[in-house]
Amino acid sequence: MELLKRKIAEKGKIFPGNILKVDSFLNHQMDIEFLDKVGEEYYERFKNDGVNKILTIEASGIAIACATARYFKAPVLFAKKNKTKNIASDVYSSNVVSYTHGREYTVIVSKQFLSKDDRVIIVDDFLANGCAMIGLIDIVKQSGATLVGVGAVIEKGFQGGGDKLREEGIRVESLAIVDEMSDDHITYRE
Amino acid sequence: MELLKRKIAEKGKIFPGNILKVDSFLNHQMDIEFLDKVGEEYYERFKNDGVNKILTIEASGIAIACATARYFKAPVLFAKKNKTKNIASDVYSSNVVSYTHGREYTVIVSKQFLSKDDRVIIVDDFLANGCAMIGLIDIVKQSGATLVGVGAVIEKGFQGGGDKLREEGIRVESLAIVDEMSDDHITYRE
Repeated sequence: MELLKRKIAEKGKIFPGNILKVDSFLNHQMDIEFLDKVGEEYYERFKNDGVNKILTIEASGIAIACATARYFKAPVLFAKKNKTKNIASDVYSSNVVSYTHGREYTVIVSKQFLSKDDRVIIVDDFLANGCAMIGLIDIVKQSGATLVGVGAVIEKGFQGGGDKLREEGIRVESLAIVDEMSDDHITYRE
Repeated sequence: MELLKRKIAEKGKIFPGNILKVDSFLNHQMDIEFLDKVGEEYYERFKNDGVNKILTIEASGIAIACATARYFKAPVLFAKKNKTKNIASDVYSSNVVSYTHGREYTVIVSKQFLSKDDRVIIVDDFLANGCAMIGLIDIVKQSGATLVGVGAVIEKGFQGGGDKLREEGIRVESLAIVDEMSDDHITYRE
């Protein structure tokens, strides 16, 4: 997605440790007009697949999922990272190890909102080692729903999570795949 | 907002301890068409106030803020609940005690995205005792930005947080104020 690459070039910041900060438009402050284009792009890619639910994970995925859901006229469902008092015990759950934040957590989704009749895409801001995505995919499998595909706005190709999913036969639609990062340059996969 | 009250009557569930679950359309699974009406309602209430930024808190507020921001053609900024590696140290922060989850946390917002030139509204899904909202208001004050007003989709009037803010002269625009709840009935403030 050329608009995304231009946006990253203009507004993204690279930090040591292969950190790409896009928090001025994607995942802290959010440019709603840009997110609308992201949603439109996902719609173009998945519009013929009978998608009826957009799954994501709190917090950074929610805005992207909402922008996408508008095009599909489908609800968003976001997985929560902790079990709180306000969530029923009747949930699908899966464990995730986050290297970014150095901790382990459980993702949960209420069983009443995901079932075998659903055709789901999963969207998120980043796909790196893929651990969060694997947790979400596990939840879709538990529910019996059909996983149509997954998509990250930015995939860190060099961390291998996306390719591992592709090898398993999962359709991965990332809007930009970063194959290499240096202090002042990003190389995208063609 | 009559549509909201109808939606609560149809889809909301009341549990002991004054818990109102609206997770089928507002804060777990999200009805995007309904959220669009919420955004439109906020726009109607604040459209003449020069609002240029919509502030919220992760995670349940994000979808509401995005729906609102579309009408204002303004960016969304969401406060994060923990300090992670991916957030710069240059942040506004405020402590919040959450009675719902029985824990204390810090809300943070990157300083680069909020300044004295901003005119801000804060939106969230619920306003109960108001502790999270007070944290967000504190952050707006720290930044020097103008707080135009705050709004919750559902205010639990009987918990007093909204009225406390009103007494301090803050404009509070909740879309439904629950004054009393029983097992099978909700009384709204007129």
